[in-house]
Amino acid sequence: MKIAVLGTGMVGRALAGRLSALGHDVVIGTRDVEQTLARTEPDWLGNVPFAQWQQDHQAVRLAAFADAGAHGEIIVNATQGALSLSALEATGAANLSGKVLWDIALPLDLSQGLPPSLTVANTDSLGEQIQRAYPEARVVKALTSVFAEVMVAPGRIPGDHNIFVVGEDADAKATVAGLLSEIGWPEKSILDLGGIRAARGVEMYMPLYFAINAALGTFDFNIAVVRK
Amino acid sequence: MKIAVLGTGMVGRALAGRLSALGHDVVIGTRDVEQTLARTEPDWLGNVPFAQWQQDHQAVRLAAFADAGAHGEIIVNATQGALSLSALEATGAANLSGKVLWDIALPLDLSQGLPPSLTVANTDSLGEQIQRAYPEARVVKALTSVFAEVMVAPGRIPGDHNIFVVGEDADAKATVAGLLSEIGWPEKSILDLGGIRAARGVEMYMPLYFAINAALGTFDFNIAVVRK
Repeated sequence: MKIAVLGTGMVGRALAGRLSALGHDVVIGTRDVEQTLARTEPDWLGNVPFAQWQQDHQAVRLAAFADAGAHGEIIVNATQGALSLSALEATGAANLSGKVLWDIALPLDLSQGLPPSLTVANTDSLGEQIQRAYPEARVVKALTSVFAEVMVAPGRIPGDHNIFVVGEDADAKATVAGLLSEIGWPEKSILDLGGIRAARGVEMYMPLYFAINAALGTFDFNIAVVRK
Repeated sequence: MKIAVLGTGMVGRALAGRLSALGHDVVIGTRDVEQTLARTEPDWLGNVPFAQWQQDHQAVRLAAFADAGAHGEIIVNATQGALSLSALEATGAANLSGKVLWDIALPLDLSQGLPPSLTVANTDSLGEQIQRAYPEARVVKALTSVFAEVMVAPGRIPGDHNIFVVGEDADAKATVAGLLSEIGWPEKSILDLGGIRAARGVEMYMPLYFAINAALGTFDFNIAVVRK
């Protein structure tokens, strides 16, 4: 499948690398290709410069947002949440129309350090903002509740644990669930929380997520929904 | 132990009944005793009128907030979150000073129905508001992430699952953890998330909690933190 992953950070790389290794034709989108390739320093999280990462992932092509959007039958938004609407604008409405827009972005406000607050919350969410801005896109918010390394290797966490899928379009959710299954998420681990409004729930989980991270001293965790 | 439970709703009744059954000397606080006893209709959640509930829980005395506060060595805030600061004002700062103030309230805005939004979120929380308003009280936010029936009977949910404890005072958290243990929460189920700022995390979990509730069709669930 032709997939565009928007965003060259940790999440974008993890998804692009994994989906490419699974045989998909993946283009990773960025605002400025030359600038992205010119970086020589690790980012603030310690990730190697993109050009160095790409040496180990040569099947993944780098392109400007609009070119990536034109390539993708499915678009994965893995940009920073605070920049997502701008990145999608650069990608172009025509490149999103009718397509599955898998939104993994979180509206984290990291300006005050960790733990982050959110740039939108409570009575709205980034997922809803994106769906409103691109009504012809079939937005699916999914896989937002775990660290990048867990996203693409759910077996890092033992036993049963869950991820959440949210969106208005049942076929689009099924498409994303199919990719999640390919990545390694068991069908029973995927919990469909209904329409895009529930993006509030998965995004507002972040403060608890970072509090658990601080308490455990690791991002290698997830939550399991346990029922009677 | 002498315990005051503020709030005659579902959570207050569940906690007061359980703590009383465990042998504690429990007073349940309300704004207006006569008005509370005069109710003859079930509330919007279908809970029986308080006077009827009390027939089965005669060891639990009903008192005005201030009288309850004077009685309690430990104060449990089980009022509606939107009314908590007003209820604590009626309880009186002198009745809170130096005491463990176990806060189970959630700042739910139910004015638009379910799922609720929050009356405070993101850059502040009800737990922090209460601690700021009563700096001499030793606020512990705990047990907020499950339905009332699960709160007092954790065995309803099979296997391992977690609850969160938040607050500035380690001794106060140990006191609440002791009560949680008496109620039936295994020690390993109690996850300490640090200082009161993490109240944002447990309160902002509510939209996800209600989305999971809607997806499962039951409140008989909890989450488990699963780590590598």
